[in-house]
Amino acid sequence: MAAIGIIGSEGRMGQALVAAVKGEGHDLAGGIDRGGDVAALAAKSDALVDFSAPAALQGNLDAAIAAGIPLLVGTTGLDAEHHAAIGEAAHTVAILQTGNTSLGVTLMAHLVSEAASRLGDDWDIEVVEMHHRMKVDAPSGTALLLGEAAAKGRGIDLAAHSERGRDGQSGARAAGAIGFASLRGGTVAGDHSVIFAGDEERITLTHNAENRMIFARGAVKAAAWLIGKPPARYTMEQVLGL
Amino acid sequence: MAAIGIIGSEGRMGQALVAAVKGEGHDLAGGIDRGGDVAALAAKSDALVDFSAPAALQGNLDAAIAAGIPLLVGTTGLDAEHHAAIGEAAHTVAILQTGNTSLGVTLMAHLVSEAASRLGDDWDIEVVEMHHRMKVDAPSGTALLLGEAAAKGRGIDLAAHSERGRDGQSGARAAGAIGFASLRGGTVAGDHSVIFAGDEERITLTHNAENRMIFARGAVKAAAWLIGKPPARYTMEQVLGL
Amino acid sequence: MAAIGIIGSEGRMGQALVAAVKGEGHDLAGGIDRGGDVAALAAKSDALVDFSAPAALQGNLDAAIAAGIPLLVGTTGLDAEHHAAIGEAAHTVAILQTGNTSLGVTLMAHLVSEAASRLGDDWDIEVVEMHHRMKVDAPSGTALLLGEAAAKGRGIDLAAHSERGRDGQSGARAAGAIGFASLRGGTVAGDHSVIFAGDEERITLTHNAENRMIFARGAVKAAAWLIGKPPARYTMEQVLGL
Amino acid sequence: MAAIGIIGSEGRMGQALVAAVKGEGHDLAGGIDRGGDVAALAAKSDALVDFSAPAALQGNLDAAIAAGIPLLVGTTGLDAEHHAAIGEAAHTVAILQTGNTSLGVTLMAHLVSEAASRLGDDWDIEVVEMHHRMKVDAPSGTALLLGEAAAKGRGIDLAAHSERGRDGQSGARAAGAIGFASLRGGTVAGDHSVIFAGDEERITLTHNAENRMIFARGAVKAAAWLIGKPPARYTMEQVLGL
Repeated sequence: MAAIGIIGSEGRMGQALVAAVKGEGHDLAGGIDRGGDVAALAAKSDALVDFSAPAALQGNLDAAIAAGIPLLVGTTGLDAEHHAAIGEAAHTVAILQTGNTSLGVTLMAHLVSEAASRLGDDWDIEVVEMHHRMKVDAPSGTALLLGEAAAKGRGIDLAAHSERGRDGQSGARAAGAIGFASLRGGTVAGDHSVIFAGDEERITLTHNAENRMIFARGAVKAAAWLIGKPPARYTMEQVLGL
Repeated sequence: MAAIGIIGSEGRMGQALVAAVKGEGHDLAGGIDRGGDVAALAAKSDALVDFSAPAALQGNLDAAIAAGIPLLVGTTGLDAEHHAAIGEAAHTVAILQTGNTSLGVTLMAHLVSEAASRLGDDWDIEVVEMHHRMKVDAPSGTALLLGEAAAKGRGIDLAAHSERGRDGQSGARAAGAIGFASLRGGTVAGDHSVIFAGDEERITLTHNAENRMIFARGAVKAAAWLIGKPPARYTMEQVLGL
Repeated sequence: MAAIGIIGSEGRMGQALVAAVKGEGHDLAGGIDRGGDVAALAAKSDALVDFSAPAALQGNLDAAIAAGIPLLVGTTGLDAEHHAAIGEAAHTVAILQTGNTSLGVTLMAHLVSEAASRLGDDWDIEVVEMHHRMKVDAPSGTALLLGEAAAKGRGIDLAAHSERGRDGQSGARAAGAIGFASLRGGTVAGDHSVIFAGDEERITLTHNAENRMIFARGAVKAAAWLIGKPPARYTMEQVLGL
Repeated sequence: MAAIGIIGSEGRMGQALVAAVKGEGHDLAGGIDRGGDVAALAAKSDALVDFSAPAALQGNLDAAIAAGIPLLVGTTGLDAEHHAAIGEAAHTVAILQTGNTSLGVTLMAHLVSEAASRLGDDWDIEVVEMHHRMKVDAPSGTALLLGEAAAKGRGIDLAAHSERGRDGQSGARAAGAIGFASLRGGTVAGDHSVIFAGDEERITLTHNAENRMIFARGAVKAAAWLIGKPPARYTMEQVLGL
């Protein structure tokens, strides 16, 4: 049972994180939002979870270092400078930065990579996802993460082999391509499938999220897992023992 | 038990048609390909099935009229002139022209139209299809046929409401849009889904074709159904009694 | 905008109903639970929604009659006597009793019936559902409702044609059978599919519920729809205009 | 390029095997059926594929030993005595016996085992399969193979944890159970899904077979892989390098 501090606690994800801390059997050390005192929060926390904004990252890293506690960073939209700052901080405290904190997605990515490495490239790979009608970008970050896992398993560069947004006279499928398609509608929290289509057979791996609580629970589990770990940059795969 | 003549009998679809004539309990009056004598074939047939090429259409229509027998046209790539010729011939003989001769797809289109007319436009509509790796165009003709059925049910113009090839910063889904996505891979004969995504629930209609025989069987059934019908232009819906 | 009274307001479904009344733009006239004064609630309501218990049904019917307002009954576990009481009350007020208040499921049942009536019985029908790990009975009530819709479309008696719980040397599928299979696990709110499996093609209709709010919203919509209707026993199909 | 001999070459599977030998770029050494001379066939083969009958097994093993060539056994319905004979023969030649020769199913079983070992038993496991209307037993052999893979990954005994044929008042799901459900209809060659259902998320692994050729191709690939291997009993996992 650990004391978890939440940075970015007022949005929809923040509220889910607060609920998840209790649901996972931990103590809520406290929650802050824009303008909150992160040093004071860190002082009473065993680990911090940051789902705030890129601009707040450096201050959050500094607070974790000052308090000597680990930090899970789930903020999206980070650039190279942010990643360098995380790498620097990881010399002093344990840090895990990820775009997807779901343990189920993490495992699926592992299985996708394994399948891609075992099946020859006569098995075509397609990634298809569906999200709610308000989502503004395509493909989803998780679809790209799964595509990366497939590319890694196959030993190829994703960017050089992606087929996205097929429409019109697209021609036959390129050998070795990884295709992406995005569906939008309703209130779907997030469905992702990776299809391996071979000659007269298919293997499909699918992840269905019922709501955003799975991301909050995974973030809290990962933060608790970081407590006591030596300074380094960790991954969700390591949390699952993969 | 009728005598069915096949125009375009040597390709993969032609061979399936020949097999379907027997499978459906009919007699094969004969089969011709490029350069074959369609008048002679028509003279010994009760109905013709044409899966040849647009350039052969007028000759085939003339042969059907001369023999006084019905014609099923499954040729793709027809333009306005071809449709005018079919309309003209339909004053003299019974004709059915369609891009999809599967009875299952025909029924599915009917159900899609019914669903679209009953559900308000707070139910987002998405059409997704998967075909083998050799298919060169997207979306499939059947996907567009299903999209048309949805648009008709909803009383809107499909072209004005299509969202195709989503990729990048596409923005939130347009209200009332009908989305299309295309997957390619392996040897998939043809899978189509129409998704109605509402608030916290979804209704999905899916058609899976195991191979091209369903199109051949439906074509032969439709040709046999045309025998004895008065001159007019018919639809697959009518063959199913819809 | 109507005043809706909720009978059985404290359980999980009751709380969803209270939320749905507001979500649908109506006024909550009030909510009662075991021991509450249903006559007082009816006096200030335009319609009542009853998700309480069979034992409370007669009192609820009496209160609706005394107040001259319609009643939606979503209580499960009703027997023949309860149905007789509902039939009697429907001479005086508008009543709708149903085991499934989702508008999506209602439409799907309509589509299933239509498909079953159009497809010959060489199309095998299977119903498969998945629910959370706590559900104690199988198949679900909704699966049986969908099976009934299929049987009705096909003009057969469901009980005489059901194949349930296949296991072991079950022999080949009986011609004309309607099969049922039940999956259990996790926190799944309710997924249902009806599969029509023909020769080399399949049509599948699927409904996915993300959570129980769809049943609450459908119940409130149906109750509001009943207001002003003449005394009779109504169905969810009528609410949808089917 | 190897010379492959087919034992049991006249049935539907036998014909698929003959086609697969050529499709995979090998030579057909010959094919025999009941009463054929297996010794003569073995003498001109580099490897044998046996899809005949249990009664013929001992003779086939003897012929492989006499010729000093490997044998792939895909015959079903073997008992303990047959397995002992295979074990004995494997001291002299390379042998692979399996109930499923599809490389895709083999990989899927590997992924299922991996997922089961990584996910805690708060992830419920369900196996669901669909086959054509003529199949007489349930669940399919492949469904049981996948269930075994899940049980192995989780370190439990499958027989002691199976829930099969759910129907009626089945009670809540047993913790740690592996459920099975079987759908039958149409001409489905074989679809299998293994569902891991956790709290508010699901991971599903699915295999779709378009036709029996995948089993024939996998058998021929495995037989060719056996050529030159030292005497032992091998598995499909080894053919895939798992």
